[in-house]
Formats: sequence, C-alpha cells, structure tokens
Amino acid sequence: MSNAELSILFFLQLAVILGVCRVVGFLASRIGQPQVVGEMIAGVLMGPSLFGLLLPGLQHQIFPKGPAMSILYASSQVGLVLYMFLIGVEFDTNLIRRRLHSAISVSLAGVVTPLVLGGLLAMLLVGRSSFFSPQVASWEAMLFMGAAIAITAFPMLARIIFERGLAGTPLGTLALAAGSTDDAVSWCILAIVIAIFKQNATIALFAIVGGMLYAVITLTLGRRLLGILGTMTERHGGITGPMLVMVLLLVMLCGWLTDTIGIYAIFGGFILGIAMPRGLFAKHLKNILEPLVTNFMLPLFFVYSGLNTSIGLVNNWFLWGIAGLVLVTALFGKGIACWVAALLNKEPNREAMAIGSLMNARGLMELILLNIGLQQGIITPTLFTMLVLMAIVTTLMASPLFELVYGRYRRQSAPAEQATDGDLVSTTSRQV
Amino acid sequence: MSNAELSILFFLQLAVILGVCRVVGFLASRIGQPQVVGEMIAGVLMGPSLFGLLLPGLQHQIFPKGPAMSILYASSQVGLVLYMFLIGVEFDTNLIRRRLHSAISVSLAGVVTPLVLGGLLAMLLVGRSSFFSPQVASWEAMLFMGAAIAITAFPMLARIIFERGLAGTPLGTLALAAGSTDDAVSWCILAIVIAIFKQNATIALFAIVGGMLYAVITLTLGRRLLGILGTMTERHGGITGPMLVMVLLLVMLCGWLTDTIGIYAIFGGFILGIAMPRGLFAKHLKNILEPLVTNFMLPLFFVYSGLNTSIGLVNNWFLWGIAGLVLVTALFGKGIACWVAALLNKEPNREAMAIGSLMNARGLMELILLNIGLQQGIITPTLFTMLVLMAIVTTLMASPLFELVYGRYRRQSAPAEQATDGDLVSTTSRQV
Repeated sequence: MSNAELSILFFLQLAVILGVCRVVGFLASRIGQPQVVGEMIAGVLMGPSLFGLLLPGLQHQIFPKGPAMSILYASSQVGLVLYMFLIGVEFDTNLIRRRLHSAISVSLAGVVTPLVLGGLLAMLLVGRSSFFSPQVASWEAMLFMGAAIAITAFPMLARIIFERGLAGTPLGTLALAAGSTDDAVSWCILAIVIAIFKQNATIALFAIVGGMLYAVITLTLGRRLLGILGTMTERHGGITGPMLVMVLLLVMLCGWLTDTIGIYAIFGGFILGIAMPRGLFAKHLKNILEPLVTNFMLPLFFVYSGLNTSIGLVNNWFLWGIAGLVLVTALFGKGIACWVAALLNKEPNREAMAIGSLMNARGLMELILLNIGLQQGIITPTLFTMLVLMAIVTTLMASPLFELVYGRYRRQSAPAEQATDGDLVSTTSRQV
Repeated sequence: MSNAELSILFFLQLAVILGVCRVVGFLASRIGQPQVVGEMIAGVLMGPSLFGLLLPGLQHQIFPKGPAMSILYASSQVGLVLYMFLIGVEFDTNLIRRRLHSAISVSLAGVVTPLVLGGLLAMLLVGRSSFFSPQVASWEAMLFMGAAIAITAFPMLARIIFERGLAGTPLGTLALAAGSTDDAVSWCILAIVIAIFKQNATIALFAIVGGMLYAVITLTLGRRLLGILGTMTERHGGITGPMLVMVLLLVMLCGWLTDTIGIYAIFGGFILGIAMPRGLFAKHLKNILEPLVTNFMLPLFFVYSGLNTSIGLVNNWFLWGIAGLVLVTALFGKGIACWVAALLNKEPNREAMAIGSLMNARGLMELILLNIGLQQGIITPTLFTMLVLMAIVTTLMASPLFELVYGRYRRQSAPAEQATDGDLVSTTSRQV
C-alpha cells in the first residue's frame, strides 16, 4: 500500500473507531457504567472476537495487518504516553501521607495478596504452553500474574471519587492513596519482570539501573527545573504555545528515552507527569491535553488491544474453567483482600466494602500491562484473552457494586450527582 | 522494523521535530516573524537541504524511508485535515458580502493575474522534463502554476489582521474577504487539475461531480443538521465529550470520503468546517482543537514537506535563474496585482500596499498545494523545491513589508500590539 492509500485507510479506521467507541460508550452510560467500560468492550468487539467473526472480509479490509497496523500502533502509543503523563500530572503524593496507616495496610493487602494468589495461579499454569511462553521462568510468570492481579484502574477510581464528590472524605483519600500506591508498585514489578525476561544480564541491569536513574533524576533535578514552567504559567496567567511545545517535546523525549533503555515509554510519561509543577499549570495542561488525548488518541489503544483479543481462543470447558479461576483469583486477590484490610484498620464496614469494590476494577491500566506482556512474549494470546475478560468483568462490576454498598446509603444523607453521558470538555474562555 | 521499534523511532522523530520547530520558531519570533515562517524553514532544515547534507547518516537514522515515513505521513495528514477543518470553522462568508466591490476586484486580480503570469511561466517550463512530468498537458501545467501563484497564506493573513486589531477595519475586512476568496478559487482549480490529470474520464468526472455534490450537501443539508451541535452547546454551556467525539468522527469520515472520491481530504475538512455552527460552539471547538493541532500535529506536515524539499536540486545558474523567475512572477502575479487592483478601487495607497503585502504571502497553504502536486506526479522535485523557496521568501517578506508600508504609520495614531513569542493557549476554565 502506498502512503496515500495508508493515509486514506487511517482516516477510515479513525472514523470507525470513534463511531463504535461512541455507540458502545453511549450504551454503557445508559446502564450507569463509565466511558472506559464502553471503550474496553468496543475494542474487543472490533477485533476477531466479534467483527472479525461476523464479517472477516470487511474486518481484514479495515484493519489489515502490515504497515497499517504499524500506524495504528505508533499513534496509539503516543496517545497512551500522553495519557499516562496526564495521570502523573494528577498524581497526588500528599494523599498517601495524609492517611498513612490505613493506606499502607490497604495497599499492602492489595499488592501482597495478588502476588500470593496470582503466584499460586501462575504456578498452576506455567507448565502448560497454552498460557505462558516456554522461555518464561516460573517466578517470572508468578511475578507477572501477581502484577496483573494487583493493578488498579486508578484513573477510573479517581474519576468515580471526584464525580461523587468524595475527594476530600476519608474514604476518597484512602482509596486514592491505596490505589495509586498499588499501581506504582505493580508497574515496578512489571518493569523488573520485563527487564529480567530479556535474559541478557547487561540489558536487564541497564533497564533497571537506567529506569531508577531516570526516575530519581526526573523527580529531583527535573522537578526543580520544571518548576520554571509553573512560575511562567502564573506570570502569564496561562500556558503559551511555546510552553506547550516544550512540555510535549519533553513527553516525547522521555517516552523515547525510557523505551530505549528498556523500560516502557508509559513509565517515562507517568514519572515525568509526577515531576510537573502543580497548581495553575497542572490545571491548564489538563484542560489543553485531556479532551483530545482521551477522546481521540486513547480509543486507538483500546482497538489495538481489542485486535489482539480473541475470545475464540478460549474454546473449551477447561479453558473457560481457567478463565473463571483467573476471575475468582482476581476478586479475592484484590477486592476482598482490600475490604478485609480496611476492616482490620477499623474502617466502617460500608466504607471498607466501597474501597474493595473500587480497588477491584482493572480498567485501562490492566490492558496496558497485558499488551506489554503479550508483546514481550511473556503470555500467550489465550491467557491474554482471559486476562482481558477479567479486566472487563472487574471493571463492569465496580460501579454497580460501589452503588450497592455505598452510593445509595450516602445519597440518603447528601445528594450526589448522577452519572451522565459526557462531561463538558470546554467552557467559555475568559480571554476570547 | 518491528512495530515496537517503529513506535520508539516515532517518539524520537516527534521530539526532534518539536525541538527544531521550537528553536527556529523562537529565532523567527525574535526578528518579528510569525511562527509559521519558522516552522516552514525548520521543515526544510530537517530534510536533505541541511540536516541530510551535513549528517546524512544520522538524518537517515532518524527519518528513514519505508514504514516510518508512512507513520509520519498518515499522522501529518490527520493533523492537516483537522487544521483545514479549523480554518473552515473560522471562515466568515459575511466578510465577502460586506465589501463586495473592492473584494471582487482585489480577489479577481489575485486570481486572474497569477493564472496569466503563472500560465506564461508554465508554458516556458513545460517542455523541459526537469520541471513538469512528461504526462502533464500544457494547460494542466498552466492551471497548476496559476493556482500555485494565486494561493494566499489565509490563516497567516487572518492572524496578522487579528493581532493588529484590524479585524473590523475596512483594510482588515477587504484583505480577509479577498484572501479567502482567492484561496477557495485556487483550491477549486487544484481539484480540477488533479481530477483531470488522473487521465481517466470516469475518475475525473467522479471526483468533480462527487466533490461538488459533497460540497453542496455538506453546506445545505449538513449545515442544517450540524446546527443541532450549536444548540446543544448553548444548552450545556460548552462542548461535551460525546459532542467532541461526534465532531472528530465527522472530520475523519469526511476526510476519508473526499480522499476516496478523488479530491483531497483537506477539502473535505475545510468544507465541513464551513458548515459547522458558529458562535459559542465554534469558539469552544477552536479552544479545544487548536493548541494540540497547531503545536503538535501540524509540525509533522512541515517536516514531511521539508523531507521532500532538496535545495541541492537547484544546482546551477540556469536553475537558480528559473527559481528567481518563479519568485518574480509570484511577486507581480499576486502582491503587485492586488496592490494595483486596490488602488483602482480608490483605496488609499498605504492600505492598497498593505493589502498587496499581505496577499503576497503563501505560507502553509502553498506547501499543502505543492505537496499534492508532487505526490500526484504533476511537478518534479526540482520545481517543487523552487516553489517551496518562493513560498518561504514571500512569507518571510510579508511581515516586514506590512510593517514598512502600514504598521508604523498606523501605530502613530493607535498603539498596536507587539509581536510576541507565543500567545496563551489556555486560560482558567470557569468550571475547574
């Protein structure tokens, strides 16, 4: 295909992706589910699991392998890094400090239990070639499965908490603190697994040491230098074009750098985001980037992920049994473990259950982790599909479960906002 | 290269592109030139004309041919279509009506003279294979050259006029009206040339009839349906996520449709933009899209264009003579012709000269047209390079010339704003 033909196809792909994500997102919002649930499902529907099953010819025409897939992949990675950067910009390390004791317990429970249960599950599966690739050592498989079960849909958790006006409450603070810690720990475990899985000690060392150096330098020297951007924003009353270019340049550079040293571009984006100045700068940056990144660029990733998900691979009762086992492990390893940990910390039962239901959702974060595992050849497409199903089910459960155990009860005292299909992404600018 | 490697390279390319555009853009702003001048030059510098000349190995490593170029091209096209869509959203057909007489004269002069002079120049060049490809008929070459000389840097013209606070003045209205008409006419000529150059009567007819049908339907039925978006924006007080997705979906769909019927995606984007509701909706849409489109996506196009520009092809005195002739034709065909036309319409001489200096700039619009001509095989890389040089020189001239003939004189009566390096792209949102 010529560049001109590829670009025509890319327009069509973007139109199809935006359309399907919108329709499924709308249906999801009708049943009170957040946008991300719709997009996760939309991605799977566009892959071999539905579209490719019903209309294989058309599906191959719209999403052919080869260079067209490279364009989709590279663009989706740019969107993903920008998204993780935004998550970093909103990451609030103060939250962890404020409710240190409960936060440590809940987040420890949300990491250690998944590692133990996930590890046991991985031990069961690692001998069979249909789940892990043969090159994977048992303990690598155990760590990967642990990280996959420990991960939390942090952006979604944060969104639910902010939407319900729980951001300043003990429950909100605790959930945000524990969720963000668990995600950070899971990413670290994943980075270590990937680095070591490369089997070349030099490369692994390079990745681990390089990644740590990157994080330390970015969060100390980098943070101080980046403070200039905060000061400039305050002085100008907003972000100027050149400042925006500087930020985007840094995100791309850090994405390239962390990809090159062997950890992942998303880590680079996330850590850079944490190092960015807060206040006016962070608020404006979010206003500028979020609408296009979440509505335009991120859906590409859901689709790329969905194209790799093939429910047809889970094709007999044994495999469906394993898929069920994965789901149960995920429920106990995360949701129930965090509930119990919160109870042991003398949190009220309703709040403890609410925390468990929120921590249990995997969302987009899980998809990112799974795609890395698949691409690195750690897991097979079959286990990938099972874990994607687990991610979708746990994410689907979160909102109704939270509503059941906490939302209704809370609304009796204070009226909370209804879930609506779409928040404003624009408001009248003062200067126009 | 694997998808993972391509995506790593894409991060590096984006970082390099943003960095070079920023540095050259900063230098341009220091000498009072608009951002676009810097980006046009930055694009050329990153191609074979400088970077490829000095460090051919490194240049090939960062911008290799093959799939990496496909990614760059497809992404740049998405940015370009979104940009032309925004230009359409800002297009004000009322302007033309308000100063009909002068506007008709100036814009006629700005189209007819380029067609005549450009036609003569093309007749001179068309016999030699170093400028037009052998398949091009004389009159196709003449029309293409005419369109290439008639085009105006409309977005830049609009920007200079708004920056100087001339938007409501007779001069501003006239320049905007004439500039937008000339661009519209030039794009139509280009569309006809491309459609006919395809040499297959059915395809040409399909493109011309299809393009006209697309324009008519979009601007009548489409405009009415799209009115709903305007009403929804007024009701919500802003643009919601789903509305944004709908708009982006339409832009991609129209880009695909117009590309498929054989005219260009940028026409699709531009015409859809004209059909969009005005008022609050247009203002918010611009706020959401403009920062990322102009600062992040558009630079990709400048670089793609620059990679095709090779000043080394103009390698002897004869060719430099032709390049000079192209430039002189461009000056007389556009700048001087519009000046004279305004004078004949009894506009004051200073204002007439100001209009000539503004209409003479070619900017990004010229690069878009030239890249289409090159890609369609109408012009050779040599003539492409000469026309790019013409575009850069005429764009470089505009600001100082305007300042010389009009800016200083006007500042004596009313203080005008200084050119600064970067306007605010964000302001405090009321809802945050």
